[in-house]
Amino acid sequence: MELSFLQSFQGLIKPLLASNLENTAIASEINIEILTVNNLWMMLCIALVFIMHLGFACVEAGFTQSKNTVNILFKNTLTPAIGLVSYTIIGFNLMYPEFANGPGWFDFNGFFLDDFAGLNYNQNYTYWTDFLFQAMFAATAATIVSGAVAERIKISAYFIFTIVFVGFVYPAIGSWQWGGGALAAMGFYDFAGSTMVHSVGGWGALAGIIVLGPRIGKYVNGKVIDKEGSSVPLATIGVFLLWFGWFGFNGGSVLSAEPRATSLVIMNTSLAAAAGALGGFVMGYFTFKRLDLGMVLNGTLAGLVGITAGADLMTPGLSLLIGFIAGNLVVLSAIGLDKLKLDDAVGAVSVHLTCGIFGTLAVGFFGEKAGWDQFLNQLIGVAVCGAAAFGSALILFLLLKKTIGLRVSRKHEEQGLDSHEHGIRGYTITYE
Amino acid sequence: MELSFLQSFQGLIKPLLASNLENTAIASEINIEILTVNNLWMMLCIALVFIMHLGFACVEAGFTQSKNTVNILFKNTLTPAIGLVSYTIIGFNLMYPEFANGPGWFDFNGFFLDDFAGLNYNQNYTYWTDFLFQAMFAATAATIVSGAVAERIKISAYFIFTIVFVGFVYPAIGSWQWGGGALAAMGFYDFAGSTMVHSVGGWGALAGIIVLGPRIGKYVNGKVIDKEGSSVPLATIGVFLLWFGWFGFNGGSVLSAEPRATSLVIMNTSLAAAAGALGGFVMGYFTFKRLDLGMVLNGTLAGLVGITAGADLMTPGLSLLIGFIAGNLVVLSAIGLDKLKLDDAVGAVSVHLTCGIFGTLAVGFFGEKAGWDQFLNQLIGVAVCGAAAFGSALILFLLLKKTIGLRVSRKHEEQGLDSHEHGIRGYTITYE
Amino acid sequence: MELSFLQSFQGLIKPLLASNLENTAIASEINIEILTVNNLWMMLCIALVFIMHLGFACVEAGFTQSKNTVNILFKNTLTPAIGLVSYTIIGFNLMYPEFANGPGWFDFNGFFLDDFAGLNYNQNYTYWTDFLFQAMFAATAATIVSGAVAERIKISAYFIFTIVFVGFVYPAIGSWQWGGGALAAMGFYDFAGSTMVHSVGGWGALAGIIVLGPRIGKYVNGKVIDKEGSSVPLATIGVFLLWFGWFGFNGGSVLSAEPRATSLVIMNTSLAAAAGALGGFVMGYFTFKRLDLGMVLNGTLAGLVGITAGADLMTPGLSLLIGFIAGNLVVLSAIGLDKLKLDDAVGAVSVHLTCGIFGTLAVGFFGEKAGWDQFLNQLIGVAVCGAAAFGSALILFLLLKKTIGLRVSRKHEEQGLDSHEHGIRGYTITYE
Repeated sequence: MELSFLQSFQGLIKPLLASNLENTAIASEINIEILTVNNLWMMLCIALVFIMHLGFACVEAGFTQSKNTVNILFKNTLTPAIGLVSYTIIGFNLMYPEFANGPGWFDFNGFFLDDFAGLNYNQNYTYWTDFLFQAMFAATAATIVSGAVAERIKISAYFIFTIVFVGFVYPAIGSWQWGGGALAAMGFYDFAGSTMVHSVGGWGALAGIIVLGPRIGKYVNGKVIDKEGSSVPLATIGVFLLWFGWFGFNGGSVLSAEPRATSLVIMNTSLAAAAGALGGFVMGYFTFKRLDLGMVLNGTLAGLVGITAGADLMTPGLSLLIGFIAGNLVVLSAIGLDKLKLDDAVGAVSVHLTCGIFGTLAVGFFGEKAGWDQFLNQLIGVAVCGAAAFGSALILFLLLKKTIGLRVSRKHEEQGLDSHEHGIRGYTITYE
Repeated sequence: MELSFLQSFQGLIKPLLASNLENTAIASEINIEILTVNNLWMMLCIALVFIMHLGFACVEAGFTQSKNTVNILFKNTLTPAIGLVSYTIIGFNLMYPEFANGPGWFDFNGFFLDDFAGLNYNQNYTYWTDFLFQAMFAATAATIVSGAVAERIKISAYFIFTIVFVGFVYPAIGSWQWGGGALAAMGFYDFAGSTMVHSVGGWGALAGIIVLGPRIGKYVNGKVIDKEGSSVPLATIGVFLLWFGWFGFNGGSVLSAEPRATSLVIMNTSLAAAAGALGGFVMGYFTFKRLDLGMVLNGTLAGLVGITAGADLMTPGLSLLIGFIAGNLVVLSAIGLDKLKLDDAVGAVSVHLTCGIFGTLAVGFFGEKAGWDQFLNQLIGVAVCGAAAFGSALILFLLLKKTIGLRVSRKHEEQGLDSHEHGIRGYTITYE
Repeated sequence: MELSFLQSFQGLIKPLLASNLENTAIASEINIEILTVNNLWMMLCIALVFIMHLGFACVEAGFTQSKNTVNILFKNTLTPAIGLVSYTIIGFNLMYPEFANGPGWFDFNGFFLDDFAGLNYNQNYTYWTDFLFQAMFAATAATIVSGAVAERIKISAYFIFTIVFVGFVYPAIGSWQWGGGALAAMGFYDFAGSTMVHSVGGWGALAGIIVLGPRIGKYVNGKVIDKEGSSVPLATIGVFLLWFGWFGFNGGSVLSAEPRATSLVIMNTSLAAAAGALGGFVMGYFTFKRLDLGMVLNGTLAGLVGITAGADLMTPGLSLLIGFIAGNLVVLSAIGLDKLKLDDAVGAVSVHLTCGIFGTLAVGFFGEKAGWDQFLNQLIGVAVCGAAAFGSALILFLLLKKTIGLRVSRKHEEQGLDSHEHGIRGYTITYE
């Protein structure tokens, strides 16, 4: 009996042992599924962040004069190209260096990507996904500068600036927070880059317009002369595409498809954009006494930039509040810059710097992390990144001015850059 | 031996018991994965529906005169902003009130969203995802109106209309079907909103153009005078973006990523759009004796609207048929409206109302649910929603006309709204 | 005791047996999840490939003269419509015929789709998803032709060509490789269609411009006269949308969401596009001595076409190299075609044919499959597909020329196709 019992026992137990092995297989299968889903989300966020480069191109070409349209598009098409290549060669390994001696200020992991980094990089995405998501981010910092300095910067100087800014300045600063460096260790919080991307780009833009000076005829006898943009529909397309892309910019910054965080983030992002549009509308109406579409569009972007630092920390109501304040701020900032005769061709400094700073500080007084300590951390982060970004951009622009020259000739600026440098016009609408 | 047997038994049984516990963990892990995948799909559908607002903006700005381009863009940029905010404050809780006393006609769940609705809302998506998907839908209903009444409506009146329409009318009607109210209980079927979104918007548009009257110079001595659109490429971009967004509009209406339903729906949607383009082409050619791009573009949209009510019920062949009929109908409807001197600046009534009704009724005679009973249900749903939407829009427009006034001055209409209300031109293409 | 032991044993063993059953349920649940995730990815890739049709429309309308804008948009809106319908009726079953007698050159599975193909089609996607992804691909082949022959082809002839090319030629050739036919059996490799899509379209375009001849006034006294494009911003939007869509074109060609392959592919695709832009810039600068935006834009597309055959086989460095070479080639090819007085209105032959061939051959000398044997296979594949595509397109265009005529009248060409065939202008920008 004993034997038969054991036999019958084994008969029963064998499938269960098999089931145990199956469980291991199932667990591994589930891990692959988790990787697949999260990686899928990140890849789509990459595509969305990529399309932001078209958004920037449209906003900048739409808001600037038709005689410089090709020049803008030339810059904005090559900016992501240069950005991707320089981030491949140096930026990625500068921004995520795995600091050897604890969280610090500088480290470097060597040139180029690792050809053999495979599937076992991370539970949530592959090495290639990680790189490409970060590379798409990197190029936006330079694009922000592009808009502000438009219509008078030498294209050679702009490209040298872009290579250095995307290849070195942006990733070095980024390493302090997102690379696990000194700012992260201190407790600074910047969810998706109000500071690390937008204000870094905005500081670069500010340095650029200070060194360059205003466009000819912008400030005459104490009056601000508007330069009419070539195409308001184009600028509107740009703003909508930026909002569209921001689903990936903020949604992807969760770094997984975790349902609660991602959906909270994209809802907060959209509500802030909506409230930003309304803020720009209201403040634009009170200050300019007209229905100012430019302020509605920049207000939308302001709301997006403003929510970016704390998109995962806010309630719907707080997101509306932050967006609305940012939408108001962008108008006041634009007026303030004009008072200082700082000529920003598309409002990039007001959108990305002013609202980037506001959004970063907002983490200190609104939402889950609000508090005096956090506010101080935010203030320090803003100041440190600002000093580094503004300082290096200023030095860079001054060096370029001294060497190859920063500004096009008066003749080229007046007649337009397109006919002189590019040989074609942006728009040729003729009917014989 | 007994003991040792028991011991050896326990040695065997323990990992199996562990495996049992593991199974529970695995099951819970799988549930999280199901939520993650479905929620991911819904979030991407949100982004796709969002970009439809750019599609509408482009279609409307492209098809209307260049002197009103900024006005159109101003309206269409603020429409989703106002829509999202008013849907946050009141719309969502009016549309999904969890009817307290069984399926009825009105209930309300209180102002604002629930800050603490977390992960345990639904197996397929989070509370935030649900809200944002529905909010993006809501704003489209007002956008449909915007196109029809373009070029002569006062912007203040339009915005008051939008707030009421998105905040109250659309969600109240929506609650009857999608909120589990009286129409749903009756057996009315409207998969993704041929009636609940498109014809509701279309009825609002019809009420608007009746109360407003035609644009100056549209109907002269019994002749219809075409107002040339500012940019046909812009209108084309808009139509493609709407088709693109419809992947999310219909695909997301499955409310999960369930493979069979979602893929059937997006295939049917695309085939109907394609056949709609061909339908508009054929009927446009026979009636106008020219290769009428406007009819091809509106035919595409007609096909999309037509398939929306039953996109999950049709075969590929039926989808082609429905799209082709809708593409023909949109041309006939446009001609009919002109006969009645009802001036729809972009053809919104023909696209969204005519084809919305057709698509809803088509559920009664084509596809899985076809039958006399279903057809009657569809007819009742169309009639009830039509009476409610047209009635409230008519009252609203008449009230606005009596109070703040609905139409801009003759001078502003003739000279264009842009220079008077917005202070800038839509296009400034000059070469010195 | 024995009994009680057995009882206690059964008490222990029962939940374990239940767990075993649960395991089966779990395994099945996991299989559904795998299908759901992969199908979701494929559906989003469909949407991305769809938007490439807008990209083509924008590139072509932007690069051609304003007097033909509506004609271009008319063609490019109806091309995907015709493509989807003809691929539904015949193309799909011609391209994936499940060759009855082993891998061959021709087979056919019958007209129309299968209405009842359900969920059990494939582990990674449904029948509907498979069809729609392939259908979106198919229409691109005709669109490539559309750009080259623009501004002088009769629209009736173009549509007949499109129906035959998408309905028969493209799917017949496609069956040799992707349908498991003779080329696949031989060892030819074309990951996402440098040959099967792009060079097939490019050969069609080449045949078209040979039979049609150049536009009036293009080549005068040995000089090449540039025809100014209506809108450079429009062309730029098109190129960015094509890059955006290529995430789906190449990413979807993995035919699942498998993380390693998909992310490698989209990274390589983006790096090749970036390097292509730089290649076009550099070669454009050296040959034309100007900052040639057209060459940067076509260089970007060249990089994308070039990487398409081997996007899953390359390292980041090789992708940069392939993209950069393609970007240079597209400039040289454009110059070469002009030398031969072959007038390609938008550079489609240089982008899709030249770089499609280069990309296909590159699989033989770069990356995982590089080697002499593979290179020979690639060469044979290029030659066989080229002979078939060019041959049938040539015959088709010659037949059309002999019968209904291929080219519009001199008067229509000079005055523009829009006013004569479509009755409206592409752009009407007037301010009273």
